[in-house]
Amino acid sequence: MKKPSIPQGTRDFGPDVVRKRQYLLGVIKTVFELYGFQPLETPAMENLETLMGKYGEEGDKLIFRILNNGLDHPDKKEGAREAFEKVLAGQNSTAITERALKYDLTIPFARYVAMNHGKLSFPFRRYQVQPVWRADRPQRGRYREFYQCDADVVGSHSLVNELEFVHIYKEVFNRLKIDGATIQLNHRRILTALAQLAGSPEKLVDITIAIDKLDKIGLEKVKEELSGRGLSTTQLETISNYLAITGSNEEKIATLKELFRGSEEGEKGIADLEWILGMLENKNQVNIDLTLARGLNYYTGVIFEARAPEQVKIGSIGGGGRYDDLTGLFGVPGVPGVGISFGIDRIYDVMEELQLFPAEAEQGTRILFLNLGEKESAEAFRLLQTVRNNRISAEIYPENIKLDKQFKYAEKRSIPYVAILGSKELENRQVVIKNIVTGEQETVAFDSMASLNLK
Amino acid sequence: MKKPSIPQGTRDFGPDVVRKRQYLLGVIKTVFELYGFQPLETPAMENLETLMGKYGEEGDKLIFRILNNGLDHPDKKEGAREAFEKVLAGQNSTAITERALKYDLTIPFARYVAMNHGKLSFPFRRYQVQPVWRADRPQRGRYREFYQCDADVVGSHSLVNELEFVHIYKEVFNRLKIDGATIQLNHRRILTALAQLAGSPEKLVDITIAIDKLDKIGLEKVKEELSGRGLSTTQLETISNYLAITGSNEEKIATLKELFRGSEEGEKGIADLEWILGMLENKNQVNIDLTLARGLNYYTGVIFEARAPEQVKIGSIGGGGRYDDLTGLFGVPGVPGVGISFGIDRIYDVMEELQLFPAEAEQGTRILFLNLGEKESAEAFRLLQTVRNNRISAEIYPENIKLDKQFKYAEKRSIPYVAILGSKELENRQVVIKNIVTGEQETVAFDSMASLNLK
Repeated sequence: MKKPSIPQGTRDFGPDVVRKRQYLLGVIKTVFELYGFQPLETPAMENLETLMGKYGEEGDKLIFRILNNGLDHPDKKEGAREAFEKVLAGQNSTAITERALKYDLTIPFARYVAMNHGKLSFPFRRYQVQPVWRADRPQRGRYREFYQCDADVVGSHSLVNELEFVHIYKEVFNRLKIDGATIQLNHRRILTALAQLAGSPEKLVDITIAIDKLDKIGLEKVKEELSGRGLSTTQLETISNYLAITGSNEEKIATLKELFRGSEEGEKGIADLEWILGMLENKNQVNIDLTLARGLNYYTGVIFEARAPEQVKIGSIGGGGRYDDLTGLFGVPGVPGVGISFGIDRIYDVMEELQLFPAEAEQGTRILFLNLGEKESAEAFRLLQTVRNNRISAEIYPENIKLDKQFKYAEKRSIPYVAILGSKELENRQVVIKNIVTGEQETVAFDSMASLNLK
Repeated sequence: MKKPSIPQGTRDFGPDVVRKRQYLLGVIKTVFELYGFQPLETPAMENLETLMGKYGEEGDKLIFRILNNGLDHPDKKEGAREAFEKVLAGQNSTAITERALKYDLTIPFARYVAMNHGKLSFPFRRYQVQPVWRADRPQRGRYREFYQCDADVVGSHSLVNELEFVHIYKEVFNRLKIDGATIQLNHRRILTALAQLAGSPEKLVDITIAIDKLDKIGLEKVKEELSGRGLSTTQLETISNYLAITGSNEEKIATLKELFRGSEEGEKGIADLEWILGMLENKNQVNIDLTLARGLNYYTGVIFEARAPEQVKIGSIGGGGRYDDLTGLFGVPGVPGVGISFGIDRIYDVMEELQLFPAEAEQGTRILFLNLGEKESAEAFRLLQTVRNNRISAEIYPENIKLDKQFKYAEKRSIPYVAILGSKELENRQVVIKNIVTGEQETVAFDSMASLNLK
């Protein structure tokens, strides 16, 4: 028999990992709720036409499609040959696939808002933590099935929302104790102003895409790429000068004001960033990062990126921005919004590396009642319920096997305490509670088990 | 533009529904943890060969298959024609599909245990709450994407595990306040003994399947079905007599002992049920239900069913049983186990019908700060953080629009309190806190907002 396996790029999450992930997601959800965001869940399956054409040509290819039912048993389904012929002829592939697995949380959210437009109260703030699927080539840290964790406000133009997201990032990293995580801010209009200043407003997308790679490929390669896109040496110099702006947030703002004086786009972008800085108690809670571009074309205003502390070399652990029109694609125009996401897998890695998961996050069973015989275990079973009534997670070893095996089970499961109830203890109506880590033990009367207190 | 929609048989869960589902699942998970069960999550996608042949011929047809990537763009993938031809010729369909969505939680669990056999500590207790997919015809209460919620102990023969599951059902229904939910017990060996008593041990499966339908189709139809399967009138009489056994649990046990005297299978089954009854503080916590059969063939010992209170007419809200061999299918024989499931969707319906969701389960934002201008809202924003630091879920209306619209937003969102901070309040350094349900209001000084207490 072949050894069983799981598809490439997918993962099983065993108990320890699930607990730590639940802790991490629990903190994030608690903060979202505190900030008035509401939970939403959409199906894993969407109609293929809902997803197609939303992620660019490359994205379309990475959508996992679900085979229409019956087609793998063509003898049972009339028309299978015609369906396959259609596809081979390059015609509509809905003959074989009409449904797909969701590729991100944004398009299903847009679809939901468009479908429920009349019923929702705007501004509508939702958060969503669900798996998505991409037929990407699996590699270290890139999966075909992974969770996204998004929060968006739609139906509001106000910068208050951007300000709230800065606070949400701060509060989550604070609660998770990820010191040194930073929040970078930039503005799409500043990039627009840059393209105008360079004299090539039509090259905005090329410039954005190239700058977005700065971190990974360095300035020289960015310039090479832009040169390949037809930008002149003078234009490249304008862009280099912009990318070289340094200093404190205030200094950057001052330099930008000089650079983009008289540019409507530039001045609006600068004013937005300045307003946000002005509303923060500490202006160093964020970094104005002029090299931040965020590749996605739909951003139109403030853009965000959250970065892991320098020492862990993990880079981005979240990002987002403002967009003009979420639901226009689905026939409901005029719904602007702003949203952020948390990169759950990376934040998990940061927390592992910095050993930030609290012991409670990994905590399962606290005490194991050993099984020392029929009569003894019947009494132990009764006391087990008593202990659980006190909210202590507890088990009884189900079989009366050798003691060392039962102890070994407790050790392997990292259960810190065992309760020993043998014939002598049964007679004295007491239990020996032993901490198997420290070796300490105490004797507790049956009647006191209801108030058993494990450190 | 076509109105957007979701695939038939799938659902969006809006904020209120997600919150109530989270409450329900939270209670169940808390109880699982209290009983020493550990969380497990497996991928949505499994290798098709992991799933095929595990659910019978009908089940196989209901598995959602994922199209191998690239096949819907055959121009980009060599061999697409050959792949389709293979399928049309009735050959291996892995040419077009190698992955599938999971159909239940049991087979992926078995696959996980087989894959990780050397690393796990047995008995291994896991719980798992995840969606599964079935290409069933959608109808009221039957979905193509729905959650299952399972707990199993594997690697133990002990009846203590069955006893634990009785307590888990009780404790969950108790915490959810579903009074009148019942737990039915029977034993596969009693059914085996019945088939033997009727003189047709080889008809066990037919008898089990027919009895399983008793609730839905009634005794006459069950007899018709069995008669169609070749059972004689005498045999049907034996079965009818068995199904007609009534009385208290003790009376049923006594009658069974008479009926199956000398039958090894029967006596073992009766002894198991008797042991469980003996270990319960109150023997009426469960009902011995001799008509309970549970259609699944792999059950070999005690079988369970949880039923909704009579008045809601919903029937089964959970079930399970003991099986001999979980992982033999995956090359690891000798792993017996016992498990139960909770029917989440039905339990949700029961709780809705009986209005059992507590108000907290639906609670979102508690207080909305109205936006009354630039200076006022800047101060409101600061106080908003103060209130959140006190763990109160709070929002500020992001735009300075007409007051009645802001009030309307609070009402539609069911936010019970609004905080009013206009120019007068700003001057006096105080906020008016108004309960928009009762109309009551009080004035709170800025300095006291950190200890704001909303009932």
